[in-house]
This record gives sequence, C-alpha cells and structure tokens, in this order.
Amino acid sequence: LPEPPLITFLSDYGHADEFAGVCHGVIAHGCPQAHVIDITHAIPRQDVLTGALVLRDAVSQMPPAVHLAIVDPGVGGERRAVALAAATPGHLLVGPDNGLLWLAAERLGGVREAVDIGRSPFRREPVSATFHGRDIFAPVAAALAAGAGLQAAGDSVAPAEVVRLELPSAYLREDGLAAHVLRSDTFGNLVLDATTHQLAEAGIAPGAELRVELGGKSHGARRAGTFAHVAPGELLLYEDATGMIALAVNLGSAAERLHAASGEELLLRGATR
Amino acid sequence: LPEPPLITFLSDYGHADEFAGVCHGVIAHGCPQAHVIDITHAIPRQDVLTGALVLRDAVSQMPPAVHLAIVDPGVGGERRAVALAAATPGHLLVGPDNGLLWLAAERLGGVREAVDIGRSPFRREPVSATFHGRDIFAPVAAALAAGAGLQAAGDSVAPAEVVRLELPSAYLREDGLAAHVLRSDTFGNLVLDATTHQLAEAGIAPGAELRVELGGKSHGARRAGTFAHVAPGELLLYEDATGMIALAVNLGSAAERLHAASGEELLLRGATR
Amino acid sequence: LPEPPLITFLSDYGHADEFAGVCHGVIAHGCPQAHVIDITHAIPRQDVLTGALVLRDAVSQMPPAVHLAIVDPGVGGERRAVALAAATPGHLLVGPDNGLLWLAAERLGGVREAVDIGRSPFRREPVSATFHGRDIFAPVAAALAAGAGLQAAGDSVAPAEVVRLELPSAYLREDGLAAHVLRSDTFGNLVLDATTHQLAEAGIAPGAELRVELGGKSHGARRAGTFAHVAPGELLLYEDATGMIALAVNLGSAAERLHAASGEELLLRGATR
Repeated sequence: LPEPPLITFLSDYGHADEFAGVCHGVIAHGCPQAHVIDITHAIPRQDVLTGALVLRDAVSQMPPAVHLAIVDPGVGGERRAVALAAATPGHLLVGPDNGLLWLAAERLGGVREAVDIGRSPFRREPVSATFHGRDIFAPVAAALAAGAGLQAAGDSVAPAEVVRLELPSAYLREDGLAAHVLRSDTFGNLVLDATTHQLAEAGIAPGAELRVELGGKSHGARRAGTFAHVAPGELLLYEDATGMIALAVNLGSAAERLHAASGEELLLRGATR
Repeated sequence: LPEPPLITFLSDYGHADEFAGVCHGVIAHGCPQAHVIDITHAIPRQDVLTGALVLRDAVSQMPPAVHLAIVDPGVGGERRAVALAAATPGHLLVGPDNGLLWLAAERLGGVREAVDIGRSPFRREPVSATFHGRDIFAPVAAALAAGAGLQAAGDSVAPAEVVRLELPSAYLREDGLAAHVLRSDTFGNLVLDATTHQLAEAGIAPGAELRVELGGKSHGARRAGTFAHVAPGELLLYEDATGMIALAVNLGSAAERLHAASGEELLLRGATR
Repeated sequence: LPEPPLITFLSDYGHADEFAGVCHGVIAHGCPQAHVIDITHAIPRQDVLTGALVLRDAVSQMPPAVHLAIVDPGVGGERRAVALAAATPGHLLVGPDNGLLWLAAERLGGVREAVDIGRSPFRREPVSATFHGRDIFAPVAAALAAGAGLQAAGDSVAPAEVVRLELPSAYLREDGLAAHVLRSDTFGNLVLDATTHQLAEAGIAPGAELRVELGGKSHGARRAGTFAHVAPGELLLYEDATGMIALAVNLGSAAERLHAASGEELLLRGATR
C-alpha cells in the first residue's frame, strides 16, 4: 500500500446529510493517517448498476487503494457484506455483495480472495440495521488501510461465490447496431455498450455519418474523434476517455437531445444502410 | 488531540461557490497539518435547527476534533461568536452562538468552558461584515487544532450564557402519540421526537401495525426493525442508526408519501385504538 | 511551497460523476503527500467567465499553492494548455489557456512565467481527446506540487501571449451608474462591477437610499454596511467580503427579487436624482 494509505469512497449517500462525513470520521478513527478520495456520493439512490459502472471507471485510474463503495438497497437484510482482494496488487474492495463491486473487480483482473465481513472483528458494535457504512464498511476499510490482512477482516468466501453483475450487450441487426445506454453523465454524454469492432461491422467508420434511432425518432450524427471535430449542437459518436463508445452533443446534452435514460436500447444505423 | 489534528466542518455554504473551499484554505494556512472532514455544506440556508440536529448526529460519531459549524443568519449583527470545550475530552466546538452548537454540546456532555471569539487574537483582519467563516471561525478553529488553548482564543463566557436550542417534544394524547418531524434526510426518512418509551405507552409495540395521521390523511404503517422487514413501498416506524425513532418507506420516501416537512406534528396511533 | 504541498482544485465537473475524484486519484499518484482543497466543482458547465471570477476570489485567500482549474469547452481543439507562475511567490496556476486563469493571475500580481503543457513530460499517455483534466492538468499540477520546476513542465510561452479575459465595466450616465452583474452566488447575492468611487460619483453615499432599475422595474434599496443593518426582506447595496460592491436581500435572494442573471446591466440611481 502507498504511503499515506489511500481509501477511495463512492456511495449514494448524497451531500445533503452527514452520512458520508460520518464515514470519514469513522475512517479517521480507525486509520488517522489515511488519505480519503471521494469518487462521488451522488450515485442515484440505490442504483447498483450505475454505482458499479462509475466505480469500474474510477478504480482503474487510481493508485493502489482500499476502494470503499456503498449502494445498498438490501441493508439489514440477507445480502452479504464483503471485502475483496483484486488480482491487481494493492487494490482491495469493500462493500455490499450485491454486484456493486463486480465490474470494478473485473477491471482489476478479477477477485483473488474474498471474505464475509458481516461479523468482522473490525466492525463497530452495536451494528445498526440501516447504517452499515458507518458500522461495517468504513471501519473494515480503515482497518485494511491501516495494514490489517484481508483474512483477519472476516470469514473466507470462495471468489466464485461473489455476486456478479450482468450488463446488456450490443448486438448486430439487419438494419444496424442495437446498443444500450449504460450511463448518462453530468454533461449528458451517453455511454453505450457498443464496441469499436461492432461499429465497423455495422459500417460506421471513423468520420462517417450515421443515424441514431430511439423512441420513433431518428437523429443525424457523426462518428468523430472529439467534440471539437463537429459543429456546436451536433450529435457525435466517439470513444470516451475511459475507452467506451459514447454519444454526445458538442456544447450540449445528448441525454436531453435523445430523451434517453440509462438502460434504454437505441439503434445506430450507418448512413449507407 | 489526535495526530494529525482533526477539524470537522458543517455549514450552509453549499457547494456551488468557493466559500467552503476558502475556509479550507484559511485552515491550511493556520494549521497545515490538519485533516478536515466535511460533514456537509448543504444545510438548508440559514436553517439553524437543521444544522444543529445534523451536527449533533455527526459529532458523537467523530474522534476528538475541533467541530467548526457555520449557519449564521445574524452575521454582522449582535450575535456572539464562540468557541466551546465540551465535557467529552478533546471535543471543541466553534461557531456562531445562535443555538447551532447547543445540541452537539449537549450530546458531548455539555459545555465545560466557553470563550467569545469575536475579537480573538487568531481572527483574520480586517474582519468583513459578512464572511465570519473566513475571518473568525475558520482561523480560530485552525489555531485550536494547532494546539492553542481555548482561553487564548477569546474572552471567557459563563457556560450558562451559551445560547440554547429548544426542540419540540412528543406527547401522549387520548388517541395516540403526537410527534414532530425533526429532520428529513436525503432518502426521505423522517426523524421524529418520539421515544421508545412513549411508543410503548401509546400501545405501539415492536412489530405492531399503526396509523400515521397527518394533514387529514391516515396511512397504514408497521413498527419494524429495519427496511427489509417490510415489503417494498411499505411505511415503517423504526429506530434509526442514531437511536432516534423515524418513519421511512422501504425503497421509497416517507417525506413524499406523507407530504411531511421539518417541524410538522403528526399522530401515531396504535391499530387497536 | 508549504509542507505538505497544497493544490487547490476548481472545475465544472460537478459532483455526480467520478471526474473530480479521478483527478484526485491522479494527483495522489503523482504527489501522494499533497493536500488538495476543492474550491468548487459546480461552476456552471463550460462557463469560463464564472470560473475565472470564482477562481480569482478564491486564490487570494489561499496559502501558496498550485491552483488547478478546469473549465474547458475547447478540450481536444486548438486551445493551449498552460502552467503559469504568478508574480506572488509560491502561486502557480494550471489549466486551459482560455481566459479561465487570467483574473486569478492578475489578482496574484500578473504572470511571471508561462509554459505550454500540451506535450508536458508529466502528462499521462495516451492523452484522451476529452479528459485533459485526468491526462494533462492533474498530473502536471501534481508534478509541480511534488517540486518539479515550471520550465520542466512544458515549453516556454511569453507571458504576454497568455489569453486574457475582458470584464464589462460600470460607467456613469446622466441618470445614475450603469453596472453589470458579474456573479450570482448560492445565496442569490449579486456581485457588480461598480466601485466605491463610482458610487460616490453617482451620489450614493454610505447609508443612502437608492433605486435599482432593471427590466423596466424599479426597486428601492439602501447602501449599508451589512445585512443586519437593513430589515429582513430589504434590498441592500454593500461591499462584500471580497471587496466587491454587491446587491443582496437580507434573509432573501437578490437574484430572485430582481430576476437578474450574470452579465446583465442594471442602473443604480441615487434617491436624490
């Protein structure tokens, strides 16, 4: 682990209440020297899929760290609480075992080791029914950052038992490439599940014009390298900074233009088709 | 004080402007080694009661620290600026003397020592008329975190003179327990002033069904241990993670369901009544 | 530079996504010991003028630091990326060369030295087309905080070539002082470009009554030292905590009262005129 030890922190706690701040306090108690980076606390409430995608996109940019993530609609119920060691050395993940950690773990080479931390010796007692961030996840993350071994944090779980998250997959149709909106960000950019290879198969080459069809409407767009390569207000299909295919409007919002939300399927159609 | 020294920071400055960031800069100037935890800066503007409740709920979760809190509708007027030592060792409170600090001080065992910091030697001169966070509160908090004694920070004030904050109180009626909404959080959970003892007196046992009456409407609810003990969409009455009695909707918002806001009185009625 | 080294960080990335957090991660990679202060990440999207004004108001309150600022509508296009040394010792500025850094540099005594960092040896490769915060600005800021010299960060640029930002100027008319709204903050306070000297010339003395005219409407106001000097709900003209002339409503919002937005011109008219 780096010096000072690093903890990244993602949740759906929002910024209006003290929940994220209290978890910071618990961390300061368990590992006063830790440096904590807030990835975001504005994951849409209880939206495990968005949380998993944002976490995946963030962790690969981070130095070795304990990645603490909490989007937990099942808190107080049957779901497991886990800490995972990723295959990439120095990267640990702590959170509910509901799929939230899965994409990040995959991005970090997969799960090398896993423990159930529901009864961790590092937990804060009494454990409340509703605030496991404070009582389980943050104290375990702090203990790991302070140097505790993963096996000391809980009971072994087979890596294969960790809950997975399935993403939709873009697929070729007669009339184009059917893709899904995975995320919509602050700027209204829409991350898709399409791949560069699929775009080529659908006849949408770099620089080419295309149609984006959704909800009975068809929008002209261009496959471009970056925003500045199209006119203001124009829709573009591009590879974003995380390597994903995305839709954007230069100086505008693709989410607003297309009235598209996370999970929706749209059709990318080469102009020659 | 812990090493590094800890400052917690709560305000109604919001995140849109540089106000909270500037206070961080002032702290970095006065105590470069301090670790600052933002509890929240999204207290509703000038809402001293909500600020006091959030601060109370946060401080008891924090390690020994200087707790800097600023919700200050009277800035530039007659209200005193204070620094307080709580009875719990290592916990100091800095802010306007308008009730904001009172509930937190009570939670920390009461005020052991108080000073008026309006003319503190640690203040930043000239003191502006409108930004005492930058000019008085943050620099005094930084000086205290850096090890200055409380008496060096200002002129002694009798602890009994510190401004108090009165909360409403739930009370038993013929037809049930009249309680008040103290806070509504991000998740739409409603914290009430009811106590477990009062619920028992009103005939609302753990697991029991009840009615929640507000604004001429009556809603069915259940007293439960946690969200997962009721069906999605169901209203529950539970003890929250801070030990308060609260209303919530599993995977929903009690604030929206009941159209309830902070300060409102509602009636909890045992189903047998 | 102070110990630990300080980086301040302002952007329009918002808090909903991981963008600001990822930049924190990049900084932790390049300068693990750096202390990062978030000024704000809620600059209105791609609003370079507001970003420049907020940055200017913040930097003069900060200890010596690397000031990282990103509001970058031209990312991926022709605009230069720069690092600047201000005349005030210890203050460096890193960001797009689109005027964003100009007002802060002026406030810090002007640009002493400038380098083009578009091909900085400290950049993260491959440089994406759309996320220069992660790939250029944050890693260069981290390298400078870690002690790298400015000349090592890029290719020299003449300070006179750095892109400037022109602000509007208040001016005297027959019937009063025409001033412009530069910023509107969270509290609805409106910062103007009027100066104390211009107010005197317009016959608006401290304590005097005046009229504020905008959009065909005329509003009574008073020039006052602070909020508490006027009644709740009253409009006041005052010198704000950064030394700027501003309009506010005591316990209310001047932006709402006047329906005024950034950039608008209004007329301040002495009551005797």
